[in-house]
Amino acid sequence: MSEELQIAKEQLDSHFEEELEDELSSTDIAEYLKTIKKNDDEQYEEYLEKLDPEVLGEVAMEMPDHMIKDVIEILPKDKVVEAIEELESDDQVELLKYIKDIDDKKARELFNELDEEDQADILKLSIYEENEAGAYMQTELFSARSDESLESAIQRLKKLKEEGELEDIYQLFVVDEENKLKYSIPLYDLITCNFKDTIGDIVKNAPEDEYKPHFALDSDNIEDVATDFQEFDLSVLPIINSSGVLVGRITTDDIHDFIQESATEQIYNLAGLDDEAEEEDDTIYKAGLSRASWLFLNLGTALLSSFVISFFDATIESFVALAILMPIVSAMGGNAGTQALTVTVRKLALGEIEFSDAKYVLKREISIAVINSIIFGILLGIVSAVWFKTPMLGVVICSAMIINLSLSGFFGAIIPMTLKKLKIDPAVGSSVLLTTFTDIIGFLSFLGLATWILI
Amino acid sequence: MSEELQIAKEQLDSHFEEELEDELSSTDIAEYLKTIKKNDDEQYEEYLEKLDPEVLGEVAMEMPDHMIKDVIEILPKDKVVEAIEELESDDQVELLKYIKDIDDKKARELFNELDEEDQADILKLSIYEENEAGAYMQTELFSARSDESLESAIQRLKKLKEEGELEDIYQLFVVDEENKLKYSIPLYDLITCNFKDTIGDIVKNAPEDEYKPHFALDSDNIEDVATDFQEFDLSVLPIINSSGVLVGRITTDDIHDFIQESATEQIYNLAGLDDEAEEEDDTIYKAGLSRASWLFLNLGTALLSSFVISFFDATIESFVALAILMPIVSAMGGNAGTQALTVTVRKLALGEIEFSDAKYVLKREISIAVINSIIFGILLGIVSAVWFKTPMLGVVICSAMIINLSLSGFFGAIIPMTLKKLKIDPAVGSSVLLTTFTDIIGFLSFLGLATWILI
Repeated sequence: MSEELQIAKEQLDSHFEEELEDELSSTDIAEYLKTIKKNDDEQYEEYLEKLDPEVLGEVAMEMPDHMIKDVIEILPKDKVVEAIEELESDDQVELLKYIKDIDDKKARELFNELDEEDQADILKLSIYEENEAGAYMQTELFSARSDESLESAIQRLKKLKEEGELEDIYQLFVVDEENKLKYSIPLYDLITCNFKDTIGDIVKNAPEDEYKPHFALDSDNIEDVATDFQEFDLSVLPIINSSGVLVGRITTDDIHDFIQESATEQIYNLAGLDDEAEEEDDTIYKAGLSRASWLFLNLGTALLSSFVISFFDATIESFVALAILMPIVSAMGGNAGTQALTVTVRKLALGEIEFSDAKYVLKREISIAVINSIIFGILLGIVSAVWFKTPMLGVVICSAMIINLSLSGFFGAIIPMTLKKLKIDPAVGSSVLLTTFTDIIGFLSFLGLATWILI
Repeated sequence: MSEELQIAKEQLDSHFEEELEDELSSTDIAEYLKTIKKNDDEQYEEYLEKLDPEVLGEVAMEMPDHMIKDVIEILPKDKVVEAIEELESDDQVELLKYIKDIDDKKARELFNELDEEDQADILKLSIYEENEAGAYMQTELFSARSDESLESAIQRLKKLKEEGELEDIYQLFVVDEENKLKYSIPLYDLITCNFKDTIGDIVKNAPEDEYKPHFALDSDNIEDVATDFQEFDLSVLPIINSSGVLVGRITTDDIHDFIQESATEQIYNLAGLDDEAEEEDDTIYKAGLSRASWLFLNLGTALLSSFVISFFDATIESFVALAILMPIVSAMGGNAGTQALTVTVRKLALGEIEFSDAKYVLKREISIAVINSIIFGILLGIVSAVWFKTPMLGVVICSAMIINLSLSGFFGAIIPMTLKKLKIDPAVGSSVLLTTFTDIIGFLSFLGLATWILI
């Protein structure tokens, strides 16, 4: 038995016997189950069956598709339904979506078994687009009207908690009779208030605007919501619809996940990877296919560069040093351009710059690119002139480097800003466009100048 | 007056007159002040002076160095001291560090003017390394002993809040007489308890382990703390020292900032950028220099590739199609390798894989690379054979593509895993190492095979 498997079993055994010093996270449990599945299919089922519904849902959300499939096929339906009911509404929607991708019919069956309230919440949340705040919210929250006494509100909270309906409450949302959001009072203020007071009194006795709520619309872009969380150091944000009615709340852990996922998406997109295809653990088919389409695109641009080079075949034939040196010009252009591009893409994503800052960004990127182009142009010029004992070759490659690296800085900054302006994700298309430009300009300037000056 | 300046002034004016529908964040205020400074130096000072100490500290933390310099030079010392005192201890340390970088003497002066308690906290926090949990914590927290009644604890909370000492409280930390952390009770549980009970009774009446605290050591790596926040959906985490004594707490907003910053660092490092140098707004000197050192490294590897090509000058001279096609082989290898590398770097950073998973990761990456290498080898082989009417050229380039792309997948996965094992940040050195390998192998296999088969 491998050491890895040993550890996995020990950890899960201790978890089930509640002997662990530190609680296992659902991520850990899913990870250990995966290890056991890889090594011992039979025991894997036993462990799966031991998971109680309270953790099963959370663990399932961390599982790869093939293991979720095991859950819905091996475990009794009642248990899976109970596990889903234990989740918060946003997680219910997400897990059902995973199940739907695996087995549409099963997902519908499970949905029909859920209690009515959960069904209604799930339907409410399912209408939102992937990038809308509504898709990230949960409907479970703690709200009260102005005329309710704090004592009575807290009695309700106690009951909801005991029923397992509510967790992680940081704010009381105050609504009017139409359920429109009016105020938001942090619990650490409420706990110091007089419980006999009504919520309305508490608001009135506080400084003006003290409880004016931060909020977001359900149709707001989740990116903007994440920015709000960060700029105002929020732990929770109430979500209202276009009529001002309180429909849910987003908690800080959802925002964490979002920030991590969008960073992964950006990093992957810049390298021509699809984050969803790469997540698939059990098959390399999707990942391979999505990578192939990127390589295909790059093959096209590489052929274009070769086409440019082919115009200069006579020049190369009579002066083979050009063939030896030309990859340097295009590679350096690509590197300098990628630097400018990466900074611009990331700053756009973080909202630090936008299209209106183009003048400033371009000035900065071009300045850096021009200075570095001169330094490296001269350096490579000297190396080339000495290596091939041809001073004019140094002049040619120096000039080509200055042209190519300077333009790389310009393109590296302008491409993502233009894509953003056109509402295309700058992380997705920028780098292939950039390479096309830097390669073609690199080969064209170097071989063109060489034909003109050297031949 | 530009539109941008107009908006900045209007927004700040409304902010000072408290007329705004939505509160401005400190980031916004800093941004608007920057716009005004660019356009109108005199008015900028007026606006700076209008900031009251309560927001000044937060705003200063969002400012570039040259504006922090203005703050400490233009505003009266008393006001700056007050602004620092308004911040939480972790932010105090950070802001003083910024000031120290600008004017060491001034930073010491300001520190000496702070009240003693703040001074003591700052000294306590300053001892931690940048990547330690302790460096991210604040000392302000809400704790109580078991024998205190809930009522009395809440009276203390109320007083601390009124004095502006405490904010954003989600948990009561229960400590023993040596201040060692015993339990952590969420406020949403406390608010439903009987206020006459002692804290000890509340713990005793709850299910066993209900209030067993999550915690981290002050010397823990902040990356692991961030993972805990994410896996257990935490909003706050108590921090203890090696003797178990409660020394501070980390809140979710600090973790947000950390996640964003480490994502930026990874994205930048992969492209050969230094995140700190790129942050500098007022000068391009640091950014330009750090980019130049990356370009210098890449120039070295490019020259190495050229050196490899130069062995084949006779081959190229007698068959110039090789010069035309060879950039494709190296570029495609670079692209395929970067895909494997990016996935591996990111998954390592997210803790999804580690060195012990090497076998699995390599299998996946090599499988994808081999399949794609065959597809694109054949494709490019046909194109080349037709283009230059030389079937054997197609065979040569197809073989070279298969060799180079397959090895790219292997190197793309093994390089970051090895660097990680050697405790070198995989995001920093991976890509230049990879390009070196893919370029050299690309040129060597293509030109080598051509010399052997075609000539």
